Amino acid sequence: MNAHEFRRRGKEMVDYVADYLEGVEGRQVYPDVEPGYLRPLLPTAAPQEPETFEDIIKDVEKIIMPGVTHWHSPYFFAYFPTASSYPAMLADMLCGAIGCIGFSWAASPACTELETVMMDWLGKMLRLPAVFLAGEAGEGGGVIQGSASEATLVALLAARTKVTRCLQAASPGLTQATIMEKLVAYASDQVVATLGTTSCCSFDNLLEVGPICREEDVWLHVDAAYAGSAFICPEFRHLLNGVEYADSFNFNPHKWLLVNFDCSAMWVKKRTDLTGAFKLDPVYLKHSHQDSGLITDYRHWQLPLGRRFRSLKMWFVFRMYGVKGLQAYIRKHVQLSHEFEALVHQDPRFEICAEVTLGLVCFRLKGSNKLNEALLERINSAKKIHLVPCHLRDQFVLRFAICSRTVESAHVQLAWEHIRGLATDLLGAQKEEKAGKPCWGGQISSTI
Amino acid sequence: MNAHEFRRRGKEMVDYVADYLEGVEGRQVYPDVEPGYLRPLLPTAAPQEPETFEDIIKDVEKIIMPGVTHWHSPYFFAYFPTASSYPAMLADMLCGAIGCIGFSWAASPACTELETVMMDWLGKMLRLPAVFLAGEAGEGGGVIQGSASEATLVALLAARTKVTRCLQAASPGLTQATIMEKLVAYASDQVVATLGTTSCCSFDNLLEVGPICREEDVWLHVDAAYAGSAFICPEFRHLLNGVEYADSFNFNPHKWLLVNFDCSAMWVKKRTDLTGAFKLDPVYLKHSHQDSGLITDYRHWQLPLGRRFRSLKMWFVFRMYGVKGLQAYIRKHVQLSHEFEALVHQDPRFEICAEVTLGLVCFRLKGSNKLNEALLERINSAKKIHLVPCHLRDQFVLRFAICSRTVESAHVQLAWEHIRGLATDLLGAQKEEKAGKPCWGGQISSTI
Repeated sequence: MNAHEFRRRGKEMVDYVADYLEGVEGRQVYPDVEPGYLRPLLPTAAPQEPETFEDIIKDVEKIIMPGVTHWHSPYFFAYFPTASSYPAMLADMLCGAIGCIGFSWAASPACTELETVMMDWLGKMLRLPAVFLAGEAGEGGGVIQGSASEATLVALLAARTKVTRCLQAASPGLTQATIMEKLVAYASDQVVATLGTTSCCSFDNLLEVGPICREEDVWLHVDAAYAGSAFICPEFRHLLNGVEYADSFNFNPHKWLLVNFDCSAMWVKKRTDLTGAFKLDPVYLKHSHQDSGLITDYRHWQLPLGRRFRSLKMWFVFRMYGVKGLQAYIRKHVQLSHEFEALVHQDPRFEICAEVTLGLVCFRLKGSNKLNEALLERINSAKKIHLVPCHLRDQFVLRFAICSRTVESAHVQLAWEHIRGLATDLLGAQKEEKAGKPCWGGQISSTI
Repeated sequence: MNAHEFRRRGKEMVDYVADYLEGVEGRQVYPDVEPGYLRPLLPTAAPQEPETFEDIIKDVEKIIMPGVTHWHSPYFFAYFPTASSYPAMLADMLCGAIGCIGFSWAASPACTELETVMMDWLGKMLRLPAVFLAGEAGEGGGVIQGSASEATLVALLAARTKVTRCLQAASPGLTQATIMEKLVAYASDQVVATLGTTSCCSFDNLLEVGPICREEDVWLHVDAAYAGSAFICPEFRHLLNGVEYADSFNFNPHKWLLVNFDCSAMWVKKRTDLTGAFKLDPVYLKHSHQDSGLITDYRHWQLPLGRRFRSLKMWFVFRMYGVKGLQAYIRKHVQLSHEFEALVHQDPRFEICAEVTLGLVCFRLKGSNKLNEALLERINSAKKIHLVPCHLRDQFVLRFAICSRTVESAHVQLAWEHIRGLATDLLGAQKEEKAGKPCWGGQISSTI
């Protein structure tokens, strides 16, 4: 395919993408396929001769789409949101074209420098303490990681390296293994200090944990993967209070800040804590500026060597939405979750299981776990909406997460009516079962 | 930005991308900017109000492009290639639109299943032993990692978990730390068993290493990050002989197989070795099919939880090029490197420093390291082409890597004439310096 054909096919793909996202509400949110559905639909090996774009795009509808869980459907309320916005998609196209691998400053200066500045912009949007920012001569700074798991692992390895070196300096006789055996990583109920857990979006109190870590000289890493985006709104910023005690902090703009995956934002107070743990300097990566102190080689901040030009997505999104547009987006989602919460409260058969702070509502039918498992089974086999559960203190709970960029009040209300209807059927069927009548509910659930 | 505006702007971006790639030859391959160039060009914080797409795209040319190292210029011969093709870019657009996070089968069945089948297709293209393929009931299989570093780390952790469990089963009294202290990871001169090293593209002999690992029950991970793509050509496949002894193998289609970054292909003989080390099963990720044995939850195969629909890129590229098209692409690059090698041989002032097997030529001026450092400095300050060096047995060596998808014989010849010219200037300046005449060469090199 040459540039000429790409111009044509690229524009067709732009329309396909727009059609898909405009029409995603009309697609069944969760697919009907069974495991192993795809293999028989494809040849057993790659073709020897080239095929046409038309062949492939036809197969997208025929083979791929029937097996897609539509995360951007306004009826998708599962897991947590994953970001999707047009500005981010435009930036990703540009990122693909430039196609640089920004492991060092020299490998593409713009890639490194835009990332540093965008991480400062984002840090300021969150009102992170200035010590986390790179600025012109700061000791801290931000880096884009691929995921919160990577950010946590990087923080853990940096902390381990720091404490090991410190102990070895104090007692040169200690082996690394002896030290490792004694090292303890403290974690909360849902792992590292967490703002907005996956199960129920609960918050650790950093103002309690932080001073203890500081006193005991313990590395404090704070993970706000989902919730972090909300801190750009002044009314939610208090949830981040105490971050000044942290050594490292991260959250995922690729969840709730309209920057398509992957973009996990991580800041450290002392960038040398990271670079000391990961430094890699073979001669083919050396460049004339690297010891100037002015520049950043991001390969020392992360596990992989390679990295894409992901800050373009942040730049496009921040500018085309503006801070106010992003705040409005967060507020709309929070408002919708409270709307759902209010609906649940109105039905005495249901209960809310955790405080609704941001965009997640944890709820259940009053009654047994089995009853709620049956309800979820009915919901997910009907496939009109999609939810996932969690366990909270041994209770089986349904999670209703506001996810899609296009979800509106009408979708939330329809979803609730649908859930209520299924609950009525379920409770009715159970009553009949207890009364000895035949139960038809089991057949529905067996179709999952 | 709504779908309507995206249709318009997306098509403009398609043209921008095509213009960029068609015109990249005319841009200076390495930028003129100094560290810190970008920050003063941007506001100190994100805008409060939205800006327009026109504003941003203007800034791309004004602010970003002057700081880009153009990896896809046909005058870029540095590092190793990073893949760029139109079919992969089209697939990435689709990937962004679907925007699913495929950590489990249920999170988007097509995302998981296409990956498994594409890894089988690719494994067959390489004629990997069948034991590495998933097939319909295999114990092995492939996974897309973000980078070769991640693949190596995953292999290392899997190996460590396996041997630790094995030793603890044999001697229940051993603590994990005691075992860890004794564990040894053997590595070659350039780390893990490597096919195609970064410095000079040398190859470990797996037929020697493999049987020893098998006898000693040592996990053998083979990394062919760059070279692996060449193994789709029968004439290069012998370099992979002995892979049958490996427990895990990986290479990067995002380097040399036209699948844009990131796409690092990794296979294991026993998928339970990976899933045993990484298994993560909170209730919100459970789904009704997961224990059926038929399905794959890729989150157990990798460090991050999230993952994009990267197999679409492989599918588009394999189909639109066909195996023959991909083979032709590899062969063209190898032929160009041999063409450059022949040119170097013709000039008695130069020497070839390592066998040219694939697309990399290591060469130098006969003489001191200082002389070759000066030559590289002249090359990279002239900025007509871009190279990076390496050290081979204490010699400072210049690496000439065939990188761009659009590089032709004419570019290679121009590059060589340019290098020869600079060498003549340099040697002339040195002669004059020795003869006591003023040296003007130092001024050129100081402009880097």
